[in-house]
Amino acid sequence: MSVDPSSATVELAADSASTLTATPTATGTATATATATTATGTATAAVDATLDSSWYAETYPVPEVHEAFLYALVEQAKDYALTHGIVMTPKLVMAMAHAESATARASSASSAAGAAQSKSAASGGHPSSASGSGSSSVGGGGAAGGSASAASVAGRPGGGVSVTATVTHAPFTLFPSPIPAAELKRAQALQPHFNELIHRVSQSPEFLASTLAEAAESDVFTAHLLSILKTVSAEEKTQKVVLGIHRADYMLHADASLQSVAANDDGEEVASAAAADDAAAGDAVHAQKRRRVDREGDAANDQSDSVATAVSTLPDARHRSSTSKTPRLKQVEINTIAASFGGLGSITTRMHEYIMSRHNFKSENLALPENVALAKLAEGMAQAWRLYNKPGAVIMMVVQPGEHNSYDQRWMEHTLWERYHVKMIRQTLTEIYTYAILDDVEKALWVDAREVAVAYFRAGYSPLDYPTEDEWDGRLLIERSRAIKCPNIGYHLAGTKKVQQALSTHEALAQFISDPEVISDMLSVFMGLYSLSPHENGDAIVKTAIEQPHKFVLKPQREGGGNNLYGEDLQRALTVMTAQQRSAHILMDRITPPKVANYIVRHGLAQRGEIVSELGIYGVFIADDSRIIKNEAAGHLLRSKLASFDDGGVAAGVAALDSPFPV
Amino acid sequence: MSVDPSSATVELAADSASTLTATPTATGTATATATATTATGTATAAVDATLDSSWYAETYPVPEVHEAFLYALVEQAKDYALTHGIVMTPKLVMAMAHAESATARASSASSAAGAAQSKSAASGGHPSSASGSGSSSVGGGGAAGGSASAASVAGRPGGGVSVTATVTHAPFTLFPSPIPAAELKRAQALQPHFNELIHRVSQSPEFLASTLAEAAESDVFTAHLLSILKTVSAEEKTQKVVLGIHRADYMLHADASLQSVAANDDGEEVASAAAADDAAAGDAVHAQKRRRVDREGDAANDQSDSVATAVSTLPDARHRSSTSKTPRLKQVEINTIAASFGGLGSITTRMHEYIMSRHNFKSENLALPENVALAKLAEGMAQAWRLYNKPGAVIMMVVQPGEHNSYDQRWMEHTLWERYHVKMIRQTLTEIYTYAILDDVEKALWVDAREVAVAYFRAGYSPLDYPTEDEWDGRLLIERSRAIKCPNIGYHLAGTKKVQQALSTHEALAQFISDPEVISDMLSVFMGLYSLSPHENGDAIVKTAIEQPHKFVLKPQREGGGNNLYGEDLQRALTVMTAQQRSAHILMDRITPPKVANYIVRHGLAQRGEIVSELGIYGVFIADDSRIIKNEAAGHLLRSKLASFDDGGVAAGVAALDSPFPV
Repeated sequence: MSVDPSSATVELAADSASTLTATPTATGTATATATATTATGTATAAVDATLDSSWYAETYPVPEVHEAFLYALVEQAKDYALTHGIVMTPKLVMAMAHAESATARASSASSAAGAAQSKSAASGGHPSSASGSGSSSVGGGGAAGGSASAASVAGRPGGGVSVTATVTHAPFTLFPSPIPAAELKRAQALQPHFNELIHRVSQSPEFLASTLAEAAESDVFTAHLLSILKTVSAEEKTQKVVLGIHRADYMLHADASLQSVAANDDGEEVASAAAADDAAAGDAVHAQKRRRVDREGDAANDQSDSVATAVSTLPDARHRSSTSKTPRLKQVEINTIAASFGGLGSITTRMHEYIMSRHNFKSENLALPENVALAKLAEGMAQAWRLYNKPGAVIMMVVQPGEHNSYDQRWMEHTLWERYHVKMIRQTLTEIYTYAILDDVEKALWVDAREVAVAYFRAGYSPLDYPTEDEWDGRLLIERSRAIKCPNIGYHLAGTKKVQQALSTHEALAQFISDPEVISDMLSVFMGLYSLSPHENGDAIVKTAIEQPHKFVLKPQREGGGNNLYGEDLQRALTVMTAQQRSAHILMDRITPPKVANYIVRHGLAQRGEIVSELGIYGVFIADDSRIIKNEAAGHLLRSKLASFDDGGVAAGVAALDSPFPV
Repeated sequence: MSVDPSSATVELAADSASTLTATPTATGTATATATATTATGTATAAVDATLDSSWYAETYPVPEVHEAFLYALVEQAKDYALTHGIVMTPKLVMAMAHAESATARASSASSAAGAAQSKSAASGGHPSSASGSGSSSVGGGGAAGGSASAASVAGRPGGGVSVTATVTHAPFTLFPSPIPAAELKRAQALQPHFNELIHRVSQSPEFLASTLAEAAESDVFTAHLLSILKTVSAEEKTQKVVLGIHRADYMLHADASLQSVAANDDGEEVASAAAADDAAAGDAVHAQKRRRVDREGDAANDQSDSVATAVSTLPDARHRSSTSKTPRLKQVEINTIAASFGGLGSITTRMHEYIMSRHNFKSENLALPENVALAKLAEGMAQAWRLYNKPGAVIMMVVQPGEHNSYDQRWMEHTLWERYHVKMIRQTLTEIYTYAILDDVEKALWVDAREVAVAYFRAGYSPLDYPTEDEWDGRLLIERSRAIKCPNIGYHLAGTKKVQQALSTHEALAQFISDPEVISDMLSVFMGLYSLSPHENGDAIVKTAIEQPHKFVLKPQREGGGNNLYGEDLQRALTVMTAQQRSAHILMDRITPPKVANYIVRHGLAQRGEIVSELGIYGVFIADDSRIIKNEAAGHLLRSKLASFDDGGVAAGVAALDSPFPV
């Protein structure tokens, strides 16, 4: 293989009928740009960086399209989104456009004092938006993530498009982004195990209470949830059936250490999170590649669609196997309440399929993996509804007042009706407090003269959702009722950061999972998670983190966006926090995701840049007290955001809906 | 039967399991409000008006819902529309909100001089929006109709939502509107005959040329089209296959004379249009009824959805037969070019089905007639594309620059790709002039390096589409090419008003249709149509129309909205026009449609009022020079607008997408 680092253009004689012209481009801080040329085979990159994301270059180079063609392409994608319901309120999307510069610094600065309670006022959005990740969070404050940042600019003047009958498309990437096929499968295969883990943890109020006791001392929100748990644990059980709708979020971790440990492809040898070492440092240099895909020679037919500059068929990537350079998925968190975007995410895959197939961006016999999230989530709800066994009862979606992401929710409502003839109604916690009643005998939950079979929460995860004691009373009323809760209080608490951290060792998992192989599989996707409690060697890790802040993320127990701290903010926070305040936080090793070029389309405008992605795997779980009735992976969600070159970009993400392109 | 005209509330002991409470309401100018009460049967109205629309009351009373429930209902309907792609650019919808007061009078006033040429500058919209109707046109300048009015306010400040990535829902009625089932079937059954008629007329350049000669003298646009016809008729035929996508538009005519002639239900005895008499006068009094449907007794289950005030199951209307009071459909016109709303209209029916089924507004086993328009239109195009027989070729949609109704068009593009893997591209006539070429040998049309199999016009029907000679050259280029035209120039001309009028007699139809029964069926849906040419007894009818202007509509040969004249405007125009100017117009007996209460939802806001509806029946036709390959009715479109109490409300219509509820 001849390597010519100075070569500006690389011809890939790909194995399909297409030719690609790749132009390696050095990105901002990247220094390594060597790219290989081979006469007949596929090109391989030789990169002088410790972190290697060259697998992208070998597999699925997101096309770079000429400007004139790009216009037509964006127009087509946007119109597909607008006609197929990938929509949001314009206010939210426009707010997100400002979020990166405006909110990131402000929110991280105000967080620094560590007083999580009051800060979470910025987290009006969805928990996925609030999800802290090991790296700069894709979900955090982002497009796909909801309104963490939108909440803070809701009152901003000049919106002009706030009429609720007006929508714009949710931000999306123009092309799907590469995810190693084996990793996608691995995460899907793991999901039933995580579903079951959450279930078992939720059934141990003692474990939850003891694990969360210290955090509850400094975090009123956790304390409130715990008190509900205690209340209902002491009472007679009203409902044996539980419905779990979860989403486990992952990011790819391009860990240089993988090159030595991951000798084969099955992912078993990946170093456990706790063993992640210095090689994963956030300031490592990535080899950045951009590819410009030129027009195929014979023009005309089926190739370009609107202008005379077009793109080529990419090779079918299915037959590629992961290599030692393949980055591995690492779990950011599991959302056990209000996991969103099952609706919009599913349709985004259809949009990508449309764009990719129509313009021959992929070989014809390769379809993007179908996204079954919407169908599966609705199916799970309908099944729980049938188990309640009252034909006239409804599913109640617990919503935030003024929800910006209601169209994602409407998809569930429409699907439930059109496929199952099950009605879904929407109620805020305040409305539930005001209007809902329990009947004395059966503890059936009645709202507005309708019996509630399933209470599905798309609110209630943030302190903002409980402005007064009334909303807590509403939550308790639901919890005490015979309605099937999704989630119940145990599931909610099982998804908190402190519990995540407490479950990050073999010993902890062994309390709930008997199969050591499953435990080992779970551990393989964990990053290092550390307690900050002085009773759990917290002082030592705090010292390390203050010395090497770039290796960690500081996450509050609190759900809600924009509260994760990185770099100097993390350093400062850990320095000033009291021991008690620290106990309401955890530390996580920072994920260093590989970057890939793509276009993010927001409000009809495309911006090309390096992005990082976060993959969500939905899980649906139904059980009663004697058996598991349903336990499955239920589709996926990919969200991507422009990678911030400032590695302290806390919650700066302006995420966009994406689809995985398996490579 | 006991009749109590003063009764405020009528209990209908309906034959299904529901109860309805009807509250008759006298409308603005209506004076007759008598309503009957029967103890056991259905209520029948005794109305002291010459025109009788009491069939509505007997069949499908559009529900009147309580305000609190209405809010939830509108929210649900609007969100369904927004997630399912019943969308438009907000500018258009907002413009329409102003249209009624602003444009109607201005446009009719400026039209009065009869100089059709310059006035049509107001008709940037779709021909369906421009379609003159026998009454105040539903399509005219309306929502469903496109941008006749929007064009005139495009530059209006304060839009604020003109970003093309922002959409709002197209205006729609909250409930479907009643159409006699037998009439719907009749119009569908007639469609293949009209398809064939248009085809035969299009194949007679001599007939078209002689019929339009006089109109062309004062109408440059018609002259231009005719000259293209002459040019291509003299040349060798490049393409034997023709594709027709038409939409015949109808309104119900509540003609008092029907009461005597329509003794049975089959519609055959309906007085022919030419025989319509004074009893159809436009100032007749309609009995207006509104019905408030109260909540069913046993509440809770499956009945209401969001508040404790709800509505009841309506009786299944399928078993009702039309009676002597049933109004009959009368043809407004047939659109042979750019018949729109196949996309949005189809989805509107799904939205109505959702709202109606979810809230039990209809019996469970009654589905609204499926609207196959989008599927059938795409199927027709795909079939024509296959007949062209070049795998790499595309379908070219000829579009207006800055089209406001592009989402309706996108539905076709998406459907063609997802179902047939046929590509559709969009080109303006200017682009075609600039970039398109014919190859010398085969006369294949190439645009931007792609061969065009089918040229489908969604532009080109209005003089506005030809700002310079370039666009005419582009049109001619297409016409001369081997591409299958939809429509070709003959089809286009066969859809003009003058041709419509010329075909309104038995003798004229007999030139093209051999079956006398078919001719009789066609005549039964025609209103009286009159030439204004001095050579065709025009002077006599002009005199009558000036004396009784309320009985007629004056329609210019010109396609394009807002040019039909009524009442005093008509009177004034006919008085000042020269004979030559009159020859570019026709007169039509005015249709007097029955009114029914409904809600029109525009930009998220619902307005209840009396509406009139216009039913479109799509037709798809494919033939070569030896045989008919496809000839069918292809779905429907119902558009409704608030009935203007000013019976001179020219093109004042703010139409909304509706669905027929067969009664």
